[in-house]
Amino acid sequence: MTFELTILGATSATPTVGKHPTSQLLNYNDQFYLIDCGEGTQVQLLRYDFKFNRINHIFISHLHGDHYFGLLGLLFSMHLQKRTNDLHLYAPRGLDEIILTHFKHSKSVLHYTLIFHPFEGNEPELLLDNEDITVTTIPMNHGILCCGFLFREKPKKLNINKERLPTNLPVPLILALKDGEDIFFEGKLIRNEELTLPPKPLRSYAFCADTKYTESIIPQIQNVDWLYHEATFTEDLAHRIEEGTYHSTAKQAAMIAKKSNAKQLIIGHFSVRYGDLNILLQEAKEVFENTVLAVEGHTYQITA
Amino acid sequence: MTFELTILGATSATPTVGKHPTSQLLNYNDQFYLIDCGEGTQVQLLRYDFKFNRINHIFISHLHGDHYFGLLGLLFSMHLQKRTNDLHLYAPRGLDEIILTHFKHSKSVLHYTLIFHPFEGNEPELLLDNEDITVTTIPMNHGILCCGFLFREKPKKLNINKERLPTNLPVPLILALKDGEDIFFEGKLIRNEELTLPPKPLRSYAFCADTKYTESIIPQIQNVDWLYHEATFTEDLAHRIEEGTYHSTAKQAAMIAKKSNAKQLIIGHFSVRYGDLNILLQEAKEVFENTVLAVEGHTYQITA
Repeated sequence: MTFELTILGATSATPTVGKHPTSQLLNYNDQFYLIDCGEGTQVQLLRYDFKFNRINHIFISHLHGDHYFGLLGLLFSMHLQKRTNDLHLYAPRGLDEIILTHFKHSKSVLHYTLIFHPFEGNEPELLLDNEDITVTTIPMNHGILCCGFLFREKPKKLNINKERLPTNLPVPLILALKDGEDIFFEGKLIRNEELTLPPKPLRSYAFCADTKYTESIIPQIQNVDWLYHEATFTEDLAHRIEEGTYHSTAKQAAMIAKKSNAKQLIIGHFSVRYGDLNILLQEAKEVFENTVLAVEGHTYQITA
Repeated sequence: MTFELTILGATSATPTVGKHPTSQLLNYNDQFYLIDCGEGTQVQLLRYDFKFNRINHIFISHLHGDHYFGLLGLLFSMHLQKRTNDLHLYAPRGLDEIILTHFKHSKSVLHYTLIFHPFEGNEPELLLDNEDITVTTIPMNHGILCCGFLFREKPKKLNINKERLPTNLPVPLILALKDGEDIFFEGKLIRNEELTLPPKPLRSYAFCADTKYTESIIPQIQNVDWLYHEATFTEDLAHRIEEGTYHSTAKQAAMIAKKSNAKQLIIGHFSVRYGDLNILLQEAKEVFENTVLAVEGHTYQITA
């Protein structure tokens, strides 16, 4: 089952030529989930050949402009493309007022239904639970209401061990095996594990949005497979955090990865001051070796 | 005196890769005036090497997103660049509420003073009158409150005709000549025009924003030097206007240029359906020969 992450933007605060603010597109089983939507996101989607109308769920971590100033443009482009399917928007309360204020003054009515799901951010909250995944908020520490999002794959039907399967087993019993049940066949009880393959491990992705170094998130993301954590600064600029920017260093991102026993760390939200991002990568790798940079346009396979 | 126009975006409705929604930068005497601010405008300014902080006046024609969705990002980038000089924003009432709603939910306070000048759009209104230019609204016909902007150069001091100037003429009398006064010198009245060069014609630029074909604007822009008029469609799609899009065809833009006796027409706001824009250019030229396309990144000299 496809589970992959494409980086649409990984720079902090201000876009520049070729560098876009935060946005990520998660593809699970060809269902597309957009995470944050900085200015220019709709053009980034076009640049990397993603169709707007494949996106049915948008998650906005917080209401700083570099995480949502591209949202209204995307919503209107979907409208102009005559979208008809519902769009679910998960965001802090307030974004609804921002959107409605624009609608009022532009006298706009969307062709499609936009369903707003506000979250509070005080404690983890289940936002979405469909046949493929669950999505839960991860409360961050960023000065204003800000949440990351934990995407967890849900258990699938079991695969049959074809080498052991009796050739004359009726279909209803095969389906029962795939559902994990033991079966009675030809007068005998057959344990499920005798005829099925072990279930694949369930994969997970934690998007940890803008935040100060915050160990309170560790229990929730313990043993996550892929962890995105912001890494705005190098350690020598840690004083910028004390000055109230509520961001993290690359080393701090790596410490969170290590303490939460993540398998893989991906860092982003880089300050534009860094021409060469390897300085951030090296700093993180000294603490947590399995680190990669979030690179615009790159797609990463979420592996267990 | 510099008077030039740079096109930052000339596409309609939805940005695509390499095509940006409406934004123009007018440079008069190294004072920069931004007209409309579609999504991506701040990056376009960077791409063409314009400094944000040289802009002290921003004019927004109307509150459709493709004309202002880049504004909040630009305002915040100016803030992050520690701007201190005042910024004047001229726009329909409502943009203030949109901006304040974002400020409230992002808990933002700008470093600099943003001065909001709302306009009504029922009749021409003088928005700005400084030592260089005047700017007046041009009420358009676009379904919601929408104005163009008429930029007029102000009279300058006269130039002295050095070939005729008496060598012993005192400086105060020279200054009086430059101010257009007649003078008494060595017992004689000298008419101003005897010692000065004829004043240069005053240049003007009319930005005619999104609109249906509307002859009511013609008296106000009569004899304008450079006229920007939107040209979203070709004539064969004129029915799209009847369907309520409130836009113009290239031919209609040219008819306005002809009837207003403009010297030069520049067309823009092109529907993304046109891969080759020459079809729009040719249609306009059949009615008004002095037509050019608004091309992103190009700078046009506003000549009389």
